[in-house]
Amino acid sequence: MSINTFGHLFRVTTWGESHGPALGATVDGCPPGVPIDAGAIQHWLDKRKPGQNRYTTQRREADAVQILSGTFEGVTTGTPVQLMIENTDQRSKDYGDIKDKFRPGHADITYFQKYGLRDYRGGGRSSARETAARVAAGGLARAALAALAPTVEIKGYMTRMGAHEIDRSRFYWDQIDQNPFWTPDATAAETWADYLDGLRKSGSSVGAVIEVVARGVPAGLGAPVYGKLDTDLAAAMMSINAVKGVEIGEGMSAAMLTGELNADEITMGPDGPVYSSNHAGGILGGISTGQDIVVRFAVKPTSSILTTRKTITRTGEETEIITKGRHDPCVGIRAVPVGEAMMACVLLDHMLLHRGQIGKNQGQIG
Amino acid sequence: MSINTFGHLFRVTTWGESHGPALGATVDGCPPGVPIDAGAIQHWLDKRKPGQNRYTTQRREADAVQILSGTFEGVTTGTPVQLMIENTDQRSKDYGDIKDKFRPGHADITYFQKYGLRDYRGGGRSSARETAARVAAGGLARAALAALAPTVEIKGYMTRMGAHEIDRSRFYWDQIDQNPFWTPDATAAETWADYLDGLRKSGSSVGAVIEVVARGVPAGLGAPVYGKLDTDLAAAMMSINAVKGVEIGEGMSAAMLTGELNADEITMGPDGPVYSSNHAGGILGGISTGQDIVVRFAVKPTSSILTTRKTITRTGEETEIITKGRHDPCVGIRAVPVGEAMMACVLLDHMLLHRGQIGKNQGQIG
Amino acid sequence: MSINTFGHLFRVTTWGESHGPALGATVDGCPPGVPIDAGAIQHWLDKRKPGQNRYTTQRREADAVQILSGTFEGVTTGTPVQLMIENTDQRSKDYGDIKDKFRPGHADITYFQKYGLRDYRGGGRSSARETAARVAAGGLARAALAALAPTVEIKGYMTRMGAHEIDRSRFYWDQIDQNPFWTPDATAAETWADYLDGLRKSGSSVGAVIEVVARGVPAGLGAPVYGKLDTDLAAAMMSINAVKGVEIGEGMSAAMLTGELNADEITMGPDGPVYSSNHAGGILGGISTGQDIVVRFAVKPTSSILTTRKTITRTGEETEIITKGRHDPCVGIRAVPVGEAMMACVLLDHMLLHRGQIGKNQGQIG
Amino acid sequence: MSINTFGHLFRVTTWGESHGPALGATVDGCPPGVPIDAGAIQHWLDKRKPGQNRYTTQRREADAVQILSGTFEGVTTGTPVQLMIENTDQRSKDYGDIKDKFRPGHADITYFQKYGLRDYRGGGRSSARETAARVAAGGLARAALAALAPTVEIKGYMTRMGAHEIDRSRFYWDQIDQNPFWTPDATAAETWADYLDGLRKSGSSVGAVIEVVARGVPAGLGAPVYGKLDTDLAAAMMSINAVKGVEIGEGMSAAMLTGELNADEITMGPDGPVYSSNHAGGILGGISTGQDIVVRFAVKPTSSILTTRKTITRTGEETEIITKGRHDPCVGIRAVPVGEAMMACVLLDHMLLHRGQIGKNQGQIG
Repeated sequence: MSINTFGHLFRVTTWGESHGPALGATVDGCPPGVPIDAGAIQHWLDKRKPGQNRYTTQRREADAVQILSGTFEGVTTGTPVQLMIENTDQRSKDYGDIKDKFRPGHADITYFQKYGLRDYRGGGRSSARETAARVAAGGLARAALAALAPTVEIKGYMTRMGAHEIDRSRFYWDQIDQNPFWTPDATAAETWADYLDGLRKSGSSVGAVIEVVARGVPAGLGAPVYGKLDTDLAAAMMSINAVKGVEIGEGMSAAMLTGELNADEITMGPDGPVYSSNHAGGILGGISTGQDIVVRFAVKPTSSILTTRKTITRTGEETEIITKGRHDPCVGIRAVPVGEAMMACVLLDHMLLHRGQIGKNQGQIG
Repeated sequence: MSINTFGHLFRVTTWGESHGPALGATVDGCPPGVPIDAGAIQHWLDKRKPGQNRYTTQRREADAVQILSGTFEGVTTGTPVQLMIENTDQRSKDYGDIKDKFRPGHADITYFQKYGLRDYRGGGRSSARETAARVAAGGLARAALAALAPTVEIKGYMTRMGAHEIDRSRFYWDQIDQNPFWTPDATAAETWADYLDGLRKSGSSVGAVIEVVARGVPAGLGAPVYGKLDTDLAAAMMSINAVKGVEIGEGMSAAMLTGELNADEITMGPDGPVYSSNHAGGILGGISTGQDIVVRFAVKPTSSILTTRKTITRTGEETEIITKGRHDPCVGIRAVPVGEAMMACVLLDHMLLHRGQIGKNQGQIG
Repeated sequence: MSINTFGHLFRVTTWGESHGPALGATVDGCPPGVPIDAGAIQHWLDKRKPGQNRYTTQRREADAVQILSGTFEGVTTGTPVQLMIENTDQRSKDYGDIKDKFRPGHADITYFQKYGLRDYRGGGRSSARETAARVAAGGLARAALAALAPTVEIKGYMTRMGAHEIDRSRFYWDQIDQNPFWTPDATAAETWADYLDGLRKSGSSVGAVIEVVARGVPAGLGAPVYGKLDTDLAAAMMSINAVKGVEIGEGMSAAMLTGELNADEITMGPDGPVYSSNHAGGILGGISTGQDIVVRFAVKPTSSILTTRKTITRTGEETEIITKGRHDPCVGIRAVPVGEAMMACVLLDHMLLHRGQIGKNQGQIG
Repeated sequence: MSINTFGHLFRVTTWGESHGPALGATVDGCPPGVPIDAGAIQHWLDKRKPGQNRYTTQRREADAVQILSGTFEGVTTGTPVQLMIENTDQRSKDYGDIKDKFRPGHADITYFQKYGLRDYRGGGRSSARETAARVAAGGLARAALAALAPTVEIKGYMTRMGAHEIDRSRFYWDQIDQNPFWTPDATAAETWADYLDGLRKSGSSVGAVIEVVARGVPAGLGAPVYGKLDTDLAAAMMSINAVKGVEIGEGMSAAMLTGELNADEITMGPDGPVYSSNHAGGILGGISTGQDIVVRFAVKPTSSILTTRKTITRTGEETEIITKGRHDPCVGIRAVPVGEAMMACVLLDHMLLHRGQIGKNQGQIG
């Protein structure tokens, strides 16, 4: 990963701030001939768009994407695709209070220390608005995956909000799109609704765990030892705003298992190897096994809260701050489509990388 | 991260297999004038070396490092440093049994599927021996850090073995080097000794959690939004063999907190900002705050165990396997110096990257 | 160099086609605090803008640049700078004739073979319009150089048009901006004016040699052995449309010299080493000496000419083609500001790279 | 190109100095299953080896290559291939005279200024010995090309020595291996033999032009606009020691042509497009046409000569120097296999890059 670019061959560079004229993604290395138009990308952006229900920020952005380059007559040309989203709702007056104070838990202080300035109007480059560009790039990646590997299906959902985890015995795929939290557990959705209403009204916020699963991924993707599929997924997810932890398969809990419990046994199915379980999260030695790829990440609670907190000013004066404005009580909700987008970009990138070095899988079992 | 290379400016490419003539690290971009010799690097390799006590593999490797290039008259020249370690203990007969069977939980099957062949003599490139090259590179990174940023101190230790976690009230830095588990909790070390003896004798294995802390890191390191310090640390740690989860600061637990609890308050100390807590793990917006950098990762249990497991052969026959050989009952132990090495490489890399783009921190508080 | 990106730390990704909505440059890694606005960049774009006199294409593009990100209150923030230029003059009817025929000497045929399609409206990505984005990025690089290394001065000029070379005894810097060919030889400018009028009227075209000089570049820039300053300059210049040769200092003529004639002798001046000559073009071992950096490149004649040429169609039929439209009789003229821009980008990039690895030059002479 | 690495997917990092224990190439990204052994690589190294006749340096190096990693049972595994060459002839006493004096035309002074030190025993990293590692890597690239694209044939030869150019009417491929200068013109070889004897005896040296041709390269390789095939070839050749100019096809002479003369006309042959000429050097718009790829580069005369030259010392004293030692009177001779190696590496890299993004050429003519 370069500074504002990620990917080996499918390279995404995002640019733009929350309160500038526009933001976007410059996507290089997309295969040619992929059918795409702005509508197909807009579909995914709408999923992330703020203000859709009372659980997300009331900031209203159209988040309308334009394709400025890299397509011709409805398909990609193989040259850079520029995806631009204009910023339309920039009530910078909301942010006047933080011009000289650093918000605890935000990037305000580190940006100032490093760069000597910061765009105090709303987080600037560190704003979660940057993730809109990721979702746009992910939309293009999904279109390319649909052309190159139509079996791949990517789905993200929330498995924990604060103290409340889902019950996996109530896990239903078709529930995910049925509630504002993208959770597969309908009962959890009800609990969380009340819980989050309470937090929202008190001006507080809470963290969340998001799980992203990719099904139908062929075996063989990933490049040891520093371009491992799990390495790149970890980087991709950790690069999302507010993410503090990333897990593959069993994740941190792998530490609690013995070798007998952890290793997924292998038998032979009609189409190749079959595994008794998926502690590995679909990745062995950094390379996909053909099982579901399972990634999980924790999103910290929004630091913009209505409770008074101690902080300092640019000149080093001690003071207090309340962060008003229109913030997400559980920013993890909107991280779901972002996690999906990062998964799509990483998988496509590794498909191209695999094809480049290897062509097709060289080993055939059975 | 490129395939076998990591780092932006301090670029480490490791090479070599467990049973070839040698393995090593090609390190490009090291600053010139750094005092270094083989002994200084050997110090760190000895910490990782197998066979030092009954809790690690009895494979005996001298792991003697040679510096083949990039130094002159005791200092680095600024040109590539080649660090080579010859393989000396290659009892390949130990591995004959796995020539045609895939070990569950290993990279055997995915390497075969992708590459059409694999070095069955001992994991080849996927062997944990590769981490010796990381430790060597980390030794060089530490020497460069000592020259550029003498305040930086890096320390790794184990905080969990299987079901047994340390008690943070018994955390003592000076205990870390006093037990074979690199743990700061002397009582835990005793418990673990018994526990691991039992596992070892039964031919089982267990996972672990390693924490790596860097103290004295200046504020300002890290480059949003895809070259964040936490992003690169996540990639670095996840790229280590058997790692399944990575956490920064509060990590996965951040999901359970409210905004009030999570955000570290800021006051003014004599030397600059002071934080009331370190839930952030020393990183805000991808940039170091000046607090301790805290990274944690989970190592899964070794999949090489003496219990019979179901598997298949290269030709797709179902069979069973017992993995004999000289393996680590808790490979997490030897991951401690590896995690430290990755931390050192990432920090040095970000220091150079920061100096390249910024020079010195542009913002001064107070 | 990645596909559509160049640079190590100052990374420029250009995007866009000649007949899409817009084109531009995504510039990552710019130091913070550099004073910049659209006007400062427009200054350089205006130099390249078509239709300024009868010797360049009559296509009329405003080439008005907008800064969409990466600046705040008049200075760069250290985050990606998006420079966008909207396409305004897109008379695609001019190009209808070439929809199915490949123009000899153009990228039409190779783009079609590789990508399976091409933007036949005007060259698409292979159009020289792409160089507008380079000039914009170069404008930003110049602003950063002005801040970091104010001694650096970059100047490009034409030294040959077809059979006609300048006479170096008539070389005057202040002549360069006084004629439409950016040539330092006023007499040559007169000759070329007549010569090019004739070519233009007959619908022909001609090649040119451009020289770009950078003065005031400090010693020490460049990174052996594949990131040499001359290596990166060669790549930068060769990547410009229609360039077929690149020379540093003595260039191809170095082959004709003996060692005595070629090696620049060194004496000691008041401010450090002084060289008796500059056959090296300011670079030894890939590192700048402190002398003028001298790069030269040859631009082939535009292939769009009014003479009938044999070619084939997409379906493999043999046919003939005349390329009408509004083309440059000597595209080398407009390559002058492009070469300057590439020089600016490479020098800034190497300054940051040098600062990253080295800090300041480590060796002091005298 | 990174500092000591080149290539996008087939990435070669060379390391090592002229007087250290060893030097070599770390090659990452090689496809698996390529038949290779040390002998196959040694074949190409022997072509470059010094001391084979009286026209090259009398330094005697076995240049015996060892493969330390990345192969198993005679084929590549897809993991990094380490190619090591031990230095055996290190008469460092020959170089004592230059410990404190900078040799004009050498990298001595710039290395010292940048790094604060230099390996005065023989050029260190800037020594032409580094090119042995390129030739080794090129040998591996050739083996991979033989497997992936057996039609590709690469041949380098000298076309000029000092004032003496070959006569293209006497160009015979089978002459190239018949004379010590790798020239296709037998008459030129005789002239040059006398000429170089004279120069050698007088302690002088002379420059040369090398041409490298690749035949049988499929259309479609190259990636606009900064990963063009000609861009990467220019960088690859310019990165070779002592190279001062690079040309593709018509090269610098393209500046002298009109559009009618320069554009290669296209007709239809039995296997696809046929071109009337090859001014383009086999590359249009940065992408291969299927014609011969033709690259030319100029090598300056060795600066190590027996004539007294003015120079300065590290402390800034003015002095004189005669560079004794065992040097090449025409270092261009040994640059022939180096140029071939770079061509092989670039072509293989672009084949993998093309396969990664595109798979197979998407456009079919006829």
